[in-house]
Amino acid sequence: MAGNNSRILLGHGSGGSLTHELIDNLFVKHFNNPELDKQTDAALLKIPHKQLAFTTDAFVVDPIFFPGGDIGKLAICGTVNDIAVSGAKPLYLSAAFIIEEGFPMEDLERIVISMAEEAKKAGVSIVTGDTKVVNKDKCDKVFITTTGIGALEEKYVNISEGNEIRPGDKILINGSIGDHGMAIMSARNELKLSAPLLSDCASLNGLIANITKASDKVHFMRDATRGGLATVISELSTNRSYGINIDEEQLLIDEAVRGMCELLGFDPMYVANEGKVVVVVAGEDAEIVLKAMQKHEFGEDSRIIGEFVGDHPGKAWLNTIIGGNRIIDMLAGEQLPRIC
Amino acid sequence: MAGNNSRILLGHGSGGSLTHELIDNLFVKHFNNPELDKQTDAALLKIPHKQLAFTTDAFVVDPIFFPGGDIGKLAICGTVNDIAVSGAKPLYLSAAFIIEEGFPMEDLERIVISMAEEAKKAGVSIVTGDTKVVNKDKCDKVFITTTGIGALEEKYVNISEGNEIRPGDKILINGSIGDHGMAIMSARNELKLSAPLLSDCASLNGLIANITKASDKVHFMRDATRGGLATVISELSTNRSYGINIDEEQLLIDEAVRGMCELLGFDPMYVANEGKVVVVVAGEDAEIVLKAMQKHEFGEDSRIIGEFVGDHPGKAWLNTIIGGNRIIDMLAGEQLPRIC
Repeated sequence: MAGNNSRILLGHGSGGSLTHELIDNLFVKHFNNPELDKQTDAALLKIPHKQLAFTTDAFVVDPIFFPGGDIGKLAICGTVNDIAVSGAKPLYLSAAFIIEEGFPMEDLERIVISMAEEAKKAGVSIVTGDTKVVNKDKCDKVFITTTGIGALEEKYVNISEGNEIRPGDKILINGSIGDHGMAIMSARNELKLSAPLLSDCASLNGLIANITKASDKVHFMRDATRGGLATVISELSTNRSYGINIDEEQLLIDEAVRGMCELLGFDPMYVANEGKVVVVVAGEDAEIVLKAMQKHEFGEDSRIIGEFVGDHPGKAWLNTIIGGNRIIDMLAGEQLPRIC
Repeated sequence: MAGNNSRILLGHGSGGSLTHELIDNLFVKHFNNPELDKQTDAALLKIPHKQLAFTTDAFVVDPIFFPGGDIGKLAICGTVNDIAVSGAKPLYLSAAFIIEEGFPMEDLERIVISMAEEAKKAGVSIVTGDTKVVNKDKCDKVFITTTGIGALEEKYVNISEGNEIRPGDKILINGSIGDHGMAIMSARNELKLSAPLLSDCASLNGLIANITKASDKVHFMRDATRGGLATVISELSTNRSYGINIDEEQLLIDEAVRGMCELLGFDPMYVANEGKVVVVVAGEDAEIVLKAMQKHEFGEDSRIIGEFVGDHPGKAWLNTIIGGNRIIDMLAGEQLPRIC
């Protein structure tokens, strides 16, 4: 590891020899790719594509280690997914660390190894980075900002804004909702649960490649992170000329997640996911896409959860199990701070 | 501004309607460009160039407002400069904010306006971003991570590693050293100085374009930030087959910076700059490049400060005003934490 230091010192963020040691013995060692090896201020990349997707996310999750993942894995998955849902192929990532003085070097290495493993799984390289260290109590352990570049094919149709959506389109999701948020809550409160609660944190670019290969009538994709499924659905209906019906019966919610939500007074539809993508596809291709999703390890529990309708334009309705319906709106504030 | 809230709430980082309000009324309003307006998770960019430069930096400077700039201006300049010194033209930036709950909205707007102004000056667009809010005392006011993409011409020669450097090459810098670090120190300690001490924080891509236009024998460029001029010089000599001589008499140090360094026990060669670029150019083109630099507003005080020599390989010597010489080495630790 980085010299004889078992904890992060202010000097590790100085730009001097301690910084160089940390870069060599930790980041370059584990992220291990030719661009990063050069250790220049900017990575030089050959990208033949003329259209790129570009996205950034800051990760401040608390706790930094949780069942199913950690802040490092999350930082890779989150940025990979934001690129993938835009229809692009994720290629390169940057990683900027803000670390609290005194943070255990062992924990940092565990996080860096987790990032390296997830990047390898997702097929992306972490090619450039930065490390800043702040005095004790001036940040909470470690924050990581990842930024990603993805390549778009020439024939690419913009599916990020949902402009192609029309009544009759179906809404799919690749499995259960609320797992990430409740896994974080259980870890934060050190709850003793009979069934362990795992975050769904995963890089979805493989699954998404299956989806876009199966149909050219995919009209929208979005990963349902902060604000949960409800926030994506609400955004998709607001100021649109059509309405949305979501079928509550089709929503898959893990029993432990449901129980914890009831206990804490949360609605699972608003709880964060980190491995769930909402897909809108033309009605005639819905079954084809569903089958393609179900073949992927992160899509086995995929399902059709709703559709776009000509009725109640601008509103999303949840058709409840007991037979009524209620409007799916966006939350004003924060259910769960520092969920990602 | 963002609704009726005069301070940042946890809800502003929730992904819900408060977040949307903040994005609309602050970021989209001031950063103002078609890519950001779409508010998709990833910005979609058309970049015809096949080679790109990609860089990231986290900014944690304390205090966030200082004479000559603020954390927002710094976040733009720092990333623009890292791209420009690689020989690329900076095009697009992302910005990720980590904000402490309770941070004044007024201060955030001031920072965002400062970023927008500097981006405009530098000719770059802030096309994507993220906002996270952490509970009070879990970060120090605001941290900003900017990541940039720059375009490299096809005929581009890699000047980031200095592989073309040979004895006889001259070393130039575009003015005085140590200004940024000492401006931060004076602001931090609220020192009452007779002459005001300003950070040199500036986007250098215009100056750098002048340099690369003036000569095709530029062999290296690097902005001398954390660790100061000495760290760049030390990196340029370590493990190389040549030596470096720096002429102390040629180093321009502002009187107030010199005084403050003496008072605090700092060596100005190790103090951070945020608007200074170290340029290595073949000896025969040194005067041409010097004149090109001096014509630019950020290069008026440019000078030749040293050269590469066949002697003392692997070592950089400072030839001092009093006639001796001493080795320029890298500092192990931290002179000034949170300088950028």
